[in-house]
Formats: sequence, C-alpha cells, structure tokens
Amino acid sequence: MRLTRFTDFGLRALMRMASEPERAYSTAEIAGEFGISRNHLTKTIAALAAAGIVETRRGTGGGAVLARPPAKLRLGDIVGVLEQKSAMVECFSTDGGACVITPTCRLKGILSGARSRFLNDLNAYTLADCALPPKPERRNGDVR
Amino acid sequence: MRLTRFTDFGLRALMRMASEPERAYSTAEIAGEFGISRNHLTKTIAALAAAGIVETRRGTGGGAVLARPPAKLRLGDIVGVLEQKSAMVECFSTDGGACVITPTCRLKGILSGARSRFLNDLNAYTLADCALPPKPERRNGDVR
Repeated sequence: MRLTRFTDFGLRALMRMASEPERAYSTAEIAGEFGISRNHLTKTIAALAAAGIVETRRGTGGGAVLARPPAKLRLGDIVGVLEQKSAMVECFSTDGGACVITPTCRLKGILSGARSRFLNDLNAYTLADCALPPKPERRNGDVR
Repeated sequence: MRLTRFTDFGLRALMRMASEPERAYSTAEIAGEFGISRNHLTKTIAALAAAGIVETRRGTGGGAVLARPPAKLRLGDIVGVLEQKSAMVECFSTDGGACVITPTCRLKGILSGARSRFLNDLNAYTLADCALPPKPERRNGDVR
C-alpha cells in the first residue's frame, strides 16, 4: 500500500513546520530543504490550507504556518485530507471505475473498513509526535 | 492510500477462484472475464504461487487453483504478499530512497506500525468472505 507523493510531501512539510510552529515557511524554503518539486509542494500546501491545517500569510516573512499547535493536528486527519482523491483500488475512484465484479463484490466494504481503521489508528498520533528537530542553522532554543 | 494494480488483479483472480475452489482457472479465462491484462495477471499468479496461495496445474484443464480452502486464506496475508514490493512512501523502498529527513524521522515507525495493523485487521477476513458468486454459465450447484 502506497501513499501518494502528494501526501509524502505534505507530511514532510508539516513535520518541518512543526519544528517551529509559530514561524511561516515559504514553499521555496521547504522544497529546497527536501529537494522536492516546488510546484507539487505549492498544490499540497493549498490543499492543507483549504482543510484548515495550515494558514498562509502574505508579504515579507510570509508563507505557510500551522493553523493549530502540532499536538492538536492528528496524523489520520492529515493523511485523510491528503489522500482524499486517492482511490484505494479502481472501484473507489469517483467515477466508480470499470471493474465488472462491482455489483456483487464483497471486498470493497472490507477494504473500506480497513482504510477507515488505518486512519483512526494514525489518529493516535499527532504532528507533535513526528516534528523534526530544528534545522542546525537555526539553533535559537525556542523551538520544540 | 492505494493498493497496486498487481494487488487489485490478484484479489479479483482469487475471488473468482474461490467461487469454485476445486477448479483450475486459466489466466486467459480470468483476464478475459475481468478485461485485464493477461501478462500482468500471469505475473500476479506467479507471485501467489511462489507464496503458496495458489498452485498451478499443467496440461489440459490446467491453470491456477487455490492451494487451501478459501476460509483458510486470510486477506491480510494475501495483501501482504501482493504488496510486498510496494513502498508506502519513498523511505520504505528497498534502496531506502533519498529523503533527507530519514535519519531523524519519527514518522516512518508510526506509518510502519499502522501498515502492520492494517494487514492484521484484514486478517479478520478470509477469501471465503469475498468469494464471487459462480458465473451464470456455470450454475451447477456445487459451488459456494
């Protein structure tokens, strides 16, 4: 089972933001640190902002900042938002897919239940449990 | 979260085989019914055979047949075999990926635990719970 790159990048960005929860991070800074596509990251941040997980600030020193303290942001909720458009198998896609067994399939409900429990299970953890240590060049002592 | 097409096709094939657990199914028959690639399916069946989930019979009337009764084949074990090569995120790949936060990452262990529990959770079900009804043209009354 795979999580999308969208989710992978989103989680990395949030783990970095959780290093200094009060600070705004530009997508250029995060993309640069992780060596990932800035374009992809911008879309990911937009989805996180739409879901109320981050807030974006304009202007000098602007960027994305966590909307709530890391300990209030549960991992299952975050993964659920980022994986929203990701179909577990063909029949989970918004158009329903073309699988011929769909009408009689008893597996879909089983998989759907296991997916929900996977997200609930991740909700036992918050972003505080996986905040990255502050970057070496910013050892100012006021970060978690 | 997505399962691979490899897993999707493997599950469909097994659900069909569970309709008549004593019968051997050719990849051509299963691929034809589901409109999926015979080449892909052949690789999937080979992986299932290597894991002892199906047996393959040669010759006329040959093909793949379940190695054990459907009620003895647990879904988590099956999905675990089929998803064996599927990295949940970059750092789960066999080469370890290139994610720069790997040394300090606390998320990998959390995701790994949730993945294990997802498979354990699926092990509450067996192939008997999602066997397909027999195909209409084979209403011979001796199938489950």
